[in-house]
Amino acid sequence: MDIFKERIERVRKEMAQAGLDQLLVTDHLSIYYLTGIDVIPMERFWAYLVRAEGENLLFANLLFALGDTGMPTISFDDNADVAALAAPHIRPGTLGVDKVMTARFLLPIQAACPDTRMVLGSDCVDNVRAIKDEEEKERMRRSSQINDACMEKLAAFIHEGVTEKECAKYLVSCYEEYGCEGQSFDGIVSFGANAADPHHSPDGTVVKEGDCIVIDIGCKKDHYCSDMTRTFFWKTVDPEYRKVYEVVREANARAEALVKAGVPLQEIDRAARDVIAAAGYGEYFTHRLGHFIGMEDHEKGDVSQMNPKPAQAGMVFSIEPGIYLPGRMGVRIEDLVIVTEDGCEILNQVEKGLRVLGV
Amino acid sequence: MDIFKERIERVRKEMAQAGLDQLLVTDHLSIYYLTGIDVIPMERFWAYLVRAEGENLLFANLLFALGDTGMPTISFDDNADVAALAAPHIRPGTLGVDKVMTARFLLPIQAACPDTRMVLGSDCVDNVRAIKDEEEKERMRRSSQINDACMEKLAAFIHEGVTEKECAKYLVSCYEEYGCEGQSFDGIVSFGANAADPHHSPDGTVVKEGDCIVIDIGCKKDHYCSDMTRTFFWKTVDPEYRKVYEVVREANARAEALVKAGVPLQEIDRAARDVIAAAGYGEYFTHRLGHFIGMEDHEKGDVSQMNPKPAQAGMVFSIEPGIYLPGRMGVRIEDLVIVTEDGCEILNQVEKGLRVLGV
Repeated sequence: MDIFKERIERVRKEMAQAGLDQLLVTDHLSIYYLTGIDVIPMERFWAYLVRAEGENLLFANLLFALGDTGMPTISFDDNADVAALAAPHIRPGTLGVDKVMTARFLLPIQAACPDTRMVLGSDCVDNVRAIKDEEEKERMRRSSQINDACMEKLAAFIHEGVTEKECAKYLVSCYEEYGCEGQSFDGIVSFGANAADPHHSPDGTVVKEGDCIVIDIGCKKDHYCSDMTRTFFWKTVDPEYRKVYEVVREANARAEALVKAGVPLQEIDRAARDVIAAAGYGEYFTHRLGHFIGMEDHEKGDVSQMNPKPAQAGMVFSIEPGIYLPGRMGVRIEDLVIVTEDGCEILNQVEKGLRVLGV
Repeated sequence: MDIFKERIERVRKEMAQAGLDQLLVTDHLSIYYLTGIDVIPMERFWAYLVRAEGENLLFANLLFALGDTGMPTISFDDNADVAALAAPHIRPGTLGVDKVMTARFLLPIQAACPDTRMVLGSDCVDNVRAIKDEEEKERMRRSSQINDACMEKLAAFIHEGVTEKECAKYLVSCYEEYGCEGQSFDGIVSFGANAADPHHSPDGTVVKEGDCIVIDIGCKKDHYCSDMTRTFFWKTVDPEYRKVYEVVREANARAEALVKAGVPLQEIDRAARDVIAAAGYGEYFTHRLGHFIGMEDHEKGDVSQMNPKPAQAGMVFSIEPGIYLPGRMGVRIEDLVIVTEDGCEILNQVEKGLRVLGV
């Protein structure tokens, strides 16, 4: 069975559980996942109708120039009435649609299918995408290998007088050298007090002695994302900062040691949170421990106090505890992990022992 | 009257014409346009309810950290049921919604408002956005001035052995120097036969003697986009290519000479198309003459055979005739223009006489 058939079978199982016999997929990444056809449709209609029984159906604007798709396909041009084209293929009853489907198409299709109720159905694909298959795991590994290499290059690049922005720019050129499609998100490089904001945007701040250096970066390679954070120090380390660093490192290690199929995701979050709270920094760990990742940097699913679901083999998520001291500094240490039956595979190999740069 | 009140009054007039007494705006650019509040909401709910009568209402996730918005605002956190929050503020009858509103919010709000019919209503804002006010014209001018300067820098940068990709990369650094937010679209640099594809992506192709060089670029400055194309030649020009160039230049000039409030947009397209057809290249001009532009590179509205509407003072669009000879070359010459009562203001000043580089 080829990889796409297998993925579609898994989606059909989810549809059965959700009571859906038809699902209109419009997220272009989900369509790529289910068909291997890579289209960025912009404002044009691009959809894949998955049916519980019978053949699936692709809707493609001729401007996508797909040629023979190898599957049943409704082709149309920019002047077509998309709703009128789709309606005859949608059965009365219930139709699952993607959460990202826009009103531009959703409202006309609703109007053209008065006997069909539209409901949110993207979980049927997102739940499948959350469990990576072998092909995807390979791509996730490769993307993180490149990210590791670029983190080392960036650490070596940092020099007296360098700004956050220069670092961020250098990183982009590193990813380019490795043939990446680009970054999986805008890279974060934060010096000193800037690091107290977990989402600080790189600016003209120059690194100075005693600064922490938080680097949270990721690339996209062959559609799959990496995402890692390391925290370094410049020239010297304040003793309290050293302590903060070791607490975060321990939180990261404890959480990763706990990851295993069957363990509730909230317990993994708790393991890290407990380490930080026990050290007296509980109120300074202000976000969830991790997020799922794949073709998008943030995919459905998180590792947080709110998520009681068990980890399953093949899930890939981040483990990224942090401590943020307002006006002073921040530390975050993040790896990606693939859940396995008896533990996890950590995708990042960049040293986590405290490193002082510029010495 | 402040600028936002004025814009909202214009939207209300459009709503009256469309028979809408309430409009839920979710396009973040439209919300910025109507309120001055700049939020990139990602997957979170961010909406502005415009009412024909009474006060408008903003819906903002607390994570946007807006502080006091100075207007009636419903604030909520990530755990909120957005549909339940919005429903009491939506009247029975008809609600206009944006074409970009996603099913994630549209379906739950439909379910929570069973007596309200949702219809596409974004034209009420898009039609207003199509007519730029003074503040917007100033920003459009400034963005195009920067684009002019960067086009000259890029023309001067092109050298023996340079690749399309190196040019595209150099351009990004130019825009950065000028403090732009970035490109308004991925810049096109096409050498020789690559230029026969109007949407060619810059690759490793090296410029060679006799090549045409099509450069289609734009930046975003203070939210507003520029977009211009010039075609140069490298070292020598084939006599036929020179002729093709002059035909396109004439098409561009004729169309621009015709622009004026009241002239149907399709007549402007026709003026350019006739020049190209008369020279025998009609079948090689494969796209519409122009598109509207503002905060987005492509906004609602086009200058094409399909659009009989008259130009109105304050509209801003591109005039970009082209001739594409498959396997050989392409020429495109594009300016942005602001329509005025008695003609138009051309926003690009880069010389359009044929220029041979590298000599």
